[in-house]
Amino acid sequence: MPFEFKATRRVEFSDTDLAGIVHFSRFFQYMETVEHGFFRSLGYSVVMPQFDPPRGFPRVHASCDYRRPLKFEDLVEMHLLVAEKKARSLTYQIRFRRVEPGPVEDVAVGRLVVVCVEKSPDGPMRAVEIPKELADQITVAPSELLEVAAGGK
Amino acid sequence: MPFEFKATRRVEFSDTDLAGIVHFSRFFQYMETVEHGFFRSLGYSVVMPQFDPPRGFPRVHASCDYRRPLKFEDLVEMHLLVAEKKARSLTYQIRFRRVEPGPVEDVAVGRLVVVCVEKSPDGPMRAVEIPKELADQITVAPSELLEVAAGGK
Amino acid sequence: MPFEFKATRRVEFSDTDLAGIVHFSRFFQYMETVEHGFFRSLGYSVVMPQFDPPRGFPRVHASCDYRRPLKFEDLVEMHLLVAEKKARSLTYQIRFRRVEPGPVEDVAVGRLVVVCVEKSPDGPMRAVEIPKELADQITVAPSELLEVAAGGK
Amino acid sequence: MPFEFKATRRVEFSDTDLAGIVHFSRFFQYMETVEHGFFRSLGYSVVMPQFDPPRGFPRVHASCDYRRPLKFEDLVEMHLLVAEKKARSLTYQIRFRRVEPGPVEDVAVGRLVVVCVEKSPDGPMRAVEIPKELADQITVAPSELLEVAAGGK
Repeated sequence: MPFEFKATRRVEFSDTDLAGIVHFSRFFQYMETVEHGFFRSLGYSVVMPQFDPPRGFPRVHASCDYRRPLKFEDLVEMHLLVAEKKARSLTYQIRFRRVEPGPVEDVAVGRLVVVCVEKSPDGPMRAVEIPKELADQITVAPSELLEVAAGGK
Repeated sequence: MPFEFKATRRVEFSDTDLAGIVHFSRFFQYMETVEHGFFRSLGYSVVMPQFDPPRGFPRVHASCDYRRPLKFEDLVEMHLLVAEKKARSLTYQIRFRRVEPGPVEDVAVGRLVVVCVEKSPDGPMRAVEIPKELADQITVAPSELLEVAAGGK
Repeated sequence: MPFEFKATRRVEFSDTDLAGIVHFSRFFQYMETVEHGFFRSLGYSVVMPQFDPPRGFPRVHASCDYRRPLKFEDLVEMHLLVAEKKARSLTYQIRFRRVEPGPVEDVAVGRLVVVCVEKSPDGPMRAVEIPKELADQITVAPSELLEVAAGGK
Repeated sequence: MPFEFKATRRVEFSDTDLAGIVHFSRFFQYMETVEHGFFRSLGYSVVMPQFDPPRGFPRVHASCDYRRPLKFEDLVEMHLLVAEKKARSLTYQIRFRRVEPGPVEDVAVGRLVVVCVEKSPDGPMRAVEIPKELADQITVAPSELLEVAAGGK
């Protein structure tokens, strides 16, 4: 179903800080991991040299709400849902859950808004429509699913 | 005035990604730089071993709105304003502006909500009141200043 | 065989820099990934709270020779071999090979020297012998294997 | 004197790991900071679009010997010395010393070997001679200085 993607990741030592937990900025790198996995699952890469001019998907917004800390060697699941789809932008919701050690618990929920751009050579980036063949594959997740993730305790 | 702090930072090569711009997750590390500078300007560190039990300031929320890309070797100013102050939490607004090369431009605006916690030995973190001697030094920034930063084009 | 461990990793966007390749400092994080996987394969974590006082394995030396660049979404294999074993230290050799897209190619070879330490509370770290039950499980890799990795073109 | 450059840096929270010290991979990012500062001090950037084709300076070797840990909010000085200069490559030695809190102590010493390359469009990188106007500005540091840094206790 092209409105979601899941990936897991084991917390690495270099993800932690002296408080003994995953640094809050890392969650944004984890979000990107699952976002890019989502694109690969559709047969695409976020780097799109096959288009002329090349397209990219920079962020215009990123946020995260943290509920519990993640620790070294925890196994975390990132569950991406497409929360919104517009002609030029996509909004993802990413639910973080610790799956090891159990019991499974909600850890954080994030949000990314990305805009499709083309890069003129040496010029500024310009928002453009998401290529039709990609956009046609992406749908918005059912609202029940989005609410479950957002409300996760 | 104990409601703001400014720091500058030159974008490093390792801050960039293959799109040639600062990776979006780095803005959260930059926010932390100026947050910790703010604490040092008050005579404190975010790591507070002088209290028993020790206190810390983990994030419960972090967000960033991106307006323009930052590039390698740009000089960026982070301007922290205290946006909200509660018994157990602080909200910061951080305005990012490129100051070199000119002209000065708004690049992004971020927001952090941090909660004062104490750590029981091996137990979970527990939200507690911000130590009075620290809280007394911190005031909320005038709303005009907060609006200017939030509305920066 | 307790002288080696393999792990693979897909290069992430945040691993790259504006030159379009994996930042050279990331190879050291990749080395750590496979080192910690090696410990887990032996039933241990590098963080050893089961010992009193707790033990850790900080680095005293790290190096890497780079032969070819790694790119976004490449699949890289890290092959750790134990190159040397002393009472208080271990030396690892880590061979990096790109396995996707093919053909398989040597990318880099790294080396870590780690020392077993115990931490006195608030005091400095002190080198101590590797716990016997862990040391007994680790052997040095055959020299032919080490030479192949070191000489990889 | 074009054989050295110094920069200082305050250790950030996101530089630390759960062992409470600067992650060993970060020293390589710190090395890069002072390397790029050295180039800027000569009027150059490591990204050289002014040449056609553009030049870059990827690493072929990086190493670090660690003597003491660095901690959060320590002020560290990186002292770069040019250790070797060839037609197509440069070798730097970088001495890390903690300057705050005192007394000043040697923390680590690193080494980078960089090669000047030009990038053919979409083709592989190719080693070329360092542009003469840049090479003419760079000299090798006196051997006494290099020995002091290497031998730092």
